[in-house]
Amino acid sequence: MHLNLFIMGCGHHKAAWREPNSAVERMGDIRYYESLARTAERGKLDAVFFADGHAAGNVAGGPQWFLEPLTALSAMARATDHIGLISTISSTFFSPFHAARMLASLDHISNGRMGWNLVTSMFDSEARNHGWEAMPSQHIRYARAEEFAHTVLALWDSWADDALRCDRQGQFADPSKVQPIGHHGEHFLVDGPLTVPRSPQGHPVLFQAGASEPGRNLAARYAEAIYAVAYDLPSAQAYYQDIQARVRAAGRAPVAIMPGLVTYVASTEAAAKAQQRELDERLPTEDSLHQLSQFIGQDCRHWELDAPLPELPPLEAFAGPKGRYATILRIIESEAPTLRQLLGRLAAGGGHCTMVGTPEQIADKMQHWVEGGGADGFNLMPPTLPGSIDDFIDQVVPLLQARGLFRREYTGSTLRDHLGLSRPAA
Amino acid sequence: MHLNLFIMGCGHHKAAWREPNSAVERMGDIRYYESLARTAERGKLDAVFFADGHAAGNVAGGPQWFLEPLTALSAMARATDHIGLISTISSTFFSPFHAARMLASLDHISNGRMGWNLVTSMFDSEARNHGWEAMPSQHIRYARAEEFAHTVLALWDSWADDALRCDRQGQFADPSKVQPIGHHGEHFLVDGPLTVPRSPQGHPVLFQAGASEPGRNLAARYAEAIYAVAYDLPSAQAYYQDIQARVRAAGRAPVAIMPGLVTYVASTEAAAKAQQRELDERLPTEDSLHQLSQFIGQDCRHWELDAPLPELPPLEAFAGPKGRYATILRIIESEAPTLRQLLGRLAAGGGHCTMVGTPEQIADKMQHWVEGGGADGFNLMPPTLPGSIDDFIDQVVPLLQARGLFRREYTGSTLRDHLGLSRPAA
Repeated sequence: MHLNLFIMGCGHHKAAWREPNSAVERMGDIRYYESLARTAERGKLDAVFFADGHAAGNVAGGPQWFLEPLTALSAMARATDHIGLISTISSTFFSPFHAARMLASLDHISNGRMGWNLVTSMFDSEARNHGWEAMPSQHIRYARAEEFAHTVLALWDSWADDALRCDRQGQFADPSKVQPIGHHGEHFLVDGPLTVPRSPQGHPVLFQAGASEPGRNLAARYAEAIYAVAYDLPSAQAYYQDIQARVRAAGRAPVAIMPGLVTYVASTEAAAKAQQRELDERLPTEDSLHQLSQFIGQDCRHWELDAPLPELPPLEAFAGPKGRYATILRIIESEAPTLRQLLGRLAAGGGHCTMVGTPEQIADKMQHWVEGGGADGFNLMPPTLPGSIDDFIDQVVPLLQARGLFRREYTGSTLRDHLGLSRPAA
Repeated sequence: MHLNLFIMGCGHHKAAWREPNSAVERMGDIRYYESLARTAERGKLDAVFFADGHAAGNVAGGPQWFLEPLTALSAMARATDHIGLISTISSTFFSPFHAARMLASLDHISNGRMGWNLVTSMFDSEARNHGWEAMPSQHIRYARAEEFAHTVLALWDSWADDALRCDRQGQFADPSKVQPIGHHGEHFLVDGPLTVPRSPQGHPVLFQAGASEPGRNLAARYAEAIYAVAYDLPSAQAYYQDIQARVRAAGRAPVAIMPGLVTYVASTEAAAKAQQRELDERLPTEDSLHQLSQFIGQDCRHWELDAPLPELPPLEAFAGPKGRYATILRIIESEAPTLRQLLGRLAAGGGHCTMVGTPEQIADKMQHWVEGGGADGFNLMPPTLPGSIDDFIDQVVPLLQARGLFRREYTGSTLRDHLGLSRPAA
């Protein structure tokens, strides 16, 4: 089983920062993030992971973005020895040369522990920070993402593994082993070679998350591990089977699929539920309505709280992130909740799988998902940080280890080692 | 007096990596750079500084680029407590949103120790890694640089100093204190606000280096400190007076001007000269010819070594970096050297001021430059690293301290404190 810690502000619950002992004053303090990375390493997790966004958003409702991920991860690399470090990279806003260069540099700095989560950005407010009046179409964004991945990988291959000679009487590097890539595509012109010699992993590990049709296809062709959104096991299984079929069709070996997982752990189920309820109650309705408005791409702040929801447009008609929207449609279809009830379901993790209970109950469910073909591991989204991740690592990880489902010690030194991925040839 | 350590590979001398004890095998090892930053901090220097380039160049001749500066400086920030950290940022290839965001993030990570050296890039080989077939004209590059500086500063002002509330019953941040910038210019469209709350320094310190007419004007309007190229005191004085006059004309207070300085220090002048000669002799003629070809923008690899140089085009006709080219013209005019003699002059630091001698002699000359109105300090360009910077810090800095010319201890905690710059209001 593979486990990543998805770091987000004071935790994934929108009210996490409102807890009396939250670290909200430390959002700009790198030592907070270093400490979370060390906690993840104490739990022998595969990696820590940062999402990313390019617009400030609703700054009143809680911390969302603060430190930039690549600069934060460099410091976190130096505060740890084993844990992998994954940054989201927007193919919409980054240039492949900058991305390839920074990720390769971080792979050197971390001695082979970097990964990247390749995304397409989606919001007009972000586009307007990067030169566009509005987002380009989904078609263009995915075409650009594919060309982006291709170009970044080519840049990482522009230095052979044995290019460096360090021959004091001769050459620093063998020029015949440092070759341009000559990429002249539709979205990018990049001659290469990169300015950074080939890094310890060759390629930092490529994560991808995509629920839309082009997102799934991109993942099938390029991803080495996949983040998923799955509210329940059947939807996880359906996603898993669909993706692995596309991966096979692309002629590739199966890739690790890691759904997001929100956990509330306590010594009794009742105590865990109370933990969740207490946190839910801290969230002003206004904030949850704002969050739901973002998730469904329309303003629901004036809808009736205790009435059933108005009918939402079908998945095909929704232009935003598909996975979460599909989950919301699924909840509405299966449970016909009132607006207030739906807000409760979405308060932490926004529709990702939520497990609430004793350590044994949670370990059981995780095992059930993995053995049931719904997941190869999880992208942990603790409702509060560091509280919920401490609980998980101290109480759930030992059970997973005792069952032989999770490593007791790191057996390799790179993120590729942790994920069982081979090092790509240049 | 202000002193920065300009970190470059194994040292600024093109043959530094060929020394038997050079750190050439450690160019990708972040601990090497951390150790240099700690050395600079031991010497109470103002800052360490990275240049930057976007094309791999002649990889046979020695290490030039390796780690990417922003990611490297984040790690170096965590290995030190006081020293400032300055990254070159290309306004030609970066977008203002990315740059503002990463620098603000690093200013948080370093607790207020970041600076940036705003440059325009110049080589077609670099342009072809960033979407252009060739470099845009100097006019366009400088117009873009000016708009870039304006936009980055505006983004840093998009969060008021007191925007963060962290009020658990209310707002995380006060939205009325987080404002868009609505920049719709000729080169950039950036709505803002930034995703990063205002950083400890407000604005990371803006360095600039420019010898051309538009470069000097840009520096006069925006720079808070300036890197200069000056081969001798008269040229330093001329540059100093010209820049401060432009700064005054722009209605601003005088800025610190720091010429590059190459030093060979030993207990006797003869020993220092022997050090320099030994290093010069390690440089294959082929490499020095390659370097000179870059400096003068034409291929001189087949010129006669022991003959006087052919006439070079005047400064106005040269499209590359003006400061160094002006120095080369000045050396040719005043000394009429053969090609071989010129290569010797340029081997370390490429035309920057070079001081060779005992600690006393070097301290005398530095004092003479500062008291003679040629400099407010220096951008140290050690021929070898860490050798030459250790020599400088152990032997020259104590003399400068004893003469009251340089700090004995840090008296503040930010790079602005070190440079005596006030914190800008938002």
